[in-house]
Amino acid sequence: MPADDTQQDSTDSVTPYSVAGDLDYERLLAQFGADELTDDQRRRFPDHPLVRRGSFYAGRDVDAFLDSEEQSVVTGIGPSGPMHLGHAMVFYFAKRLQDAFGARVYVPVSDDEKFWFKDQTAAETSEYLESNLRDLLAVGFDPELTRIVVDTEDADVIYPLATAFGRDITNSTLEAVYGTPENLGQGFYPAVQTAHLLLPQLVHGEHETLVPIAVDQDPHVRVSRDVAAKARYPATKPGALLMRFLPSLGGPGKMSSSEGVAIRLTDDAETVREKVREHAYTGGRASVEEHREHGGDPDVDVPFQYLAAFFEPDDRELARVERDYRNGDLLSGELKELAADRIAEFLESHQRRRNALGDVREELAAYRLTDAERERARDAVGFQRA
Amino acid sequence: MPADDTQQDSTDSVTPYSVAGDLDYERLLAQFGADELTDDQRRRFPDHPLVRRGSFYAGRDVDAFLDSEEQSVVTGIGPSGPMHLGHAMVFYFAKRLQDAFGARVYVPVSDDEKFWFKDQTAAETSEYLESNLRDLLAVGFDPELTRIVVDTEDADVIYPLATAFGRDITNSTLEAVYGTPENLGQGFYPAVQTAHLLLPQLVHGEHETLVPIAVDQDPHVRVSRDVAAKARYPATKPGALLMRFLPSLGGPGKMSSSEGVAIRLTDDAETVREKVREHAYTGGRASVEEHREHGGDPDVDVPFQYLAAFFEPDDRELARVERDYRNGDLLSGELKELAADRIAEFLESHQRRRNALGDVREELAAYRLTDAERERARDAVGFQRA
Repeated sequence: MPADDTQQDSTDSVTPYSVAGDLDYERLLAQFGADELTDDQRRRFPDHPLVRRGSFYAGRDVDAFLDSEEQSVVTGIGPSGPMHLGHAMVFYFAKRLQDAFGARVYVPVSDDEKFWFKDQTAAETSEYLESNLRDLLAVGFDPELTRIVVDTEDADVIYPLATAFGRDITNSTLEAVYGTPENLGQGFYPAVQTAHLLLPQLVHGEHETLVPIAVDQDPHVRVSRDVAAKARYPATKPGALLMRFLPSLGGPGKMSSSEGVAIRLTDDAETVREKVREHAYTGGRASVEEHREHGGDPDVDVPFQYLAAFFEPDDRELARVERDYRNGDLLSGELKELAADRIAEFLESHQRRRNALGDVREELAAYRLTDAERERARDAVGFQRA
Repeated sequence: MPADDTQQDSTDSVTPYSVAGDLDYERLLAQFGADELTDDQRRRFPDHPLVRRGSFYAGRDVDAFLDSEEQSVVTGIGPSGPMHLGHAMVFYFAKRLQDAFGARVYVPVSDDEKFWFKDQTAAETSEYLESNLRDLLAVGFDPELTRIVVDTEDADVIYPLATAFGRDITNSTLEAVYGTPENLGQGFYPAVQTAHLLLPQLVHGEHETLVPIAVDQDPHVRVSRDVAAKARYPATKPGALLMRFLPSLGGPGKMSSSEGVAIRLTDDAETVREKVREHAYTGGRASVEEHREHGGDPDVDVPFQYLAAFFEPDDRELARVERDYRNGDLLSGELKELAADRIAEFLESHQRRRNALGDVREELAAYRLTDAERERARDAVGFQRA
């Protein structure tokens, strides 16, 4: 459930389907009723730039997750195009939690959602799905601890769960949280999303789960928390780890797979450099002379933001880059090359694993729910199978 | 999709979820835009009391169905209680079409719908489901030509289809046809129902299908016809055969499995006689003397209506009963015994087959979609499986 990307309008409102206006991340927390991460919580996570440098800045029930012996992380994707950097960062973060904590990772792939919300055919959705699955497999999750679930392909478990939750979520909640849907699929999707978020508990029994998610997707988590709170199911409220938006290459706003120029996980090093050189929004000055004299502004510089969020893990190196940029020793062009190099290194390693994969469906087999797991989940909501 | 039964209110309106006011069957046709059956159409159906005596009184695209070489009939049930006589009559009529025409029969069983619309648990739904399946199997459909599909158990095919149609049906259509749903499941159900009605064509290719259905369920058919008309799928508009309501034992209104006293398919002969004796609404006079003098009114007499609709196939015998009742030779008590005998005979034969069945799930196997059929249906909407 990374940030969705739909039209922006001029009002300042956030629902899971639209992000509009300039975002005040603190005000959002007050509006949503989530809590800013504490220093103690940051320390207790495995060391990772996304937490250390504040991209993940807030959450719900984070302590309960950190305290728990049994942990699951749920983070999904909707196949509406090639996977981009923003998605990858969250999946690699989930893998970090898996490596450090032994956490399970559940990855719901919402081909149904993208079909309902995007003007794309089922055939296009299938094509993106294949590509996205390949990227997911390339992350290198532990198949013992990881389940990848595709809504229409795993409908034998997703649909009975969504059927159960489809009664728990009222139409009033739908309208209040999401506004009026355009079609019946859009109206049903919150029940499917709740199935995603409660699935680890329905399969393995009640335990703490964490949903690392862009802040605008928090309403999905809140809806599933309300369902879990009904005590009808063996599930406790899923926790959330809320993320600021990574700026798109062209500047502030959300990174999007369908608008503007984004770096794709399949881009080669040269393409990455070209995209960064030509499209990255910088904090540099109008001329080299002016830059040398007054310095650049890393706070709005997209290449710097990418390094800070994910691609330069070394704090001292990042501090050096920031200092040199501010005092004018580092030019925008040089900072672009530096960021492009780091991103390209990351992608080369990702692509090496991606290309080493065999047939996607054969590779996926080890990550699919077992028959016993499917049965347990259906049993947990009362829809046993023949 | 037999008549659903929900609260009645004082306005005269018909949606698939409520039947209110006194029904003017002709006005309904004008409102819905369906056509009264012609004498020619009646003759072309295999001889059956439900057609001959006008319970089925109207339809859509009935000629196209009658003209077609390849025919499917779709008639379903929602497991909200034990199956009752009204359901059985339609299933036996479908079997008649199968025997006479070689028509396929598809029986969708909407356990999801009943969960969303009724105040019953998933466990109760499962229990009714087992009982309803046993009754369906007892009808004696040809397994080569018949498919029984349970929504949550056959979600691997139903959900991808409903996903496709969930984009085709707008929220405005939902509100206009059904009113505002209470929960997300109710809002999604028309997409599931469309999956039911188009399924035979998605499995076997475009051909004529007929949906014998209580007149208040006609909006479901119209919604699926609108989807089929989009030409996005290999499907032509399903036809409809619209049915008047069979009065409930206690008098005018719809026969209900959840309200009042209804005859169940599992009732033994003595129970049937008791229910008819004690609860049947009659057209008799206040006293035997008055009845002998003025005669009874078969038009409002429920035992007579049951005989006419289904249980006395012989026209001459029925005419004799009607004449004797009108002129007072036949008393209400005698007519009750006569109807109860006929119903009990029908049920004894049904129950003999029902009791001869082995394990329901083993018996059901021959009626389930094959893997190849599932694949064809998913392919037809573009959601191929791994």
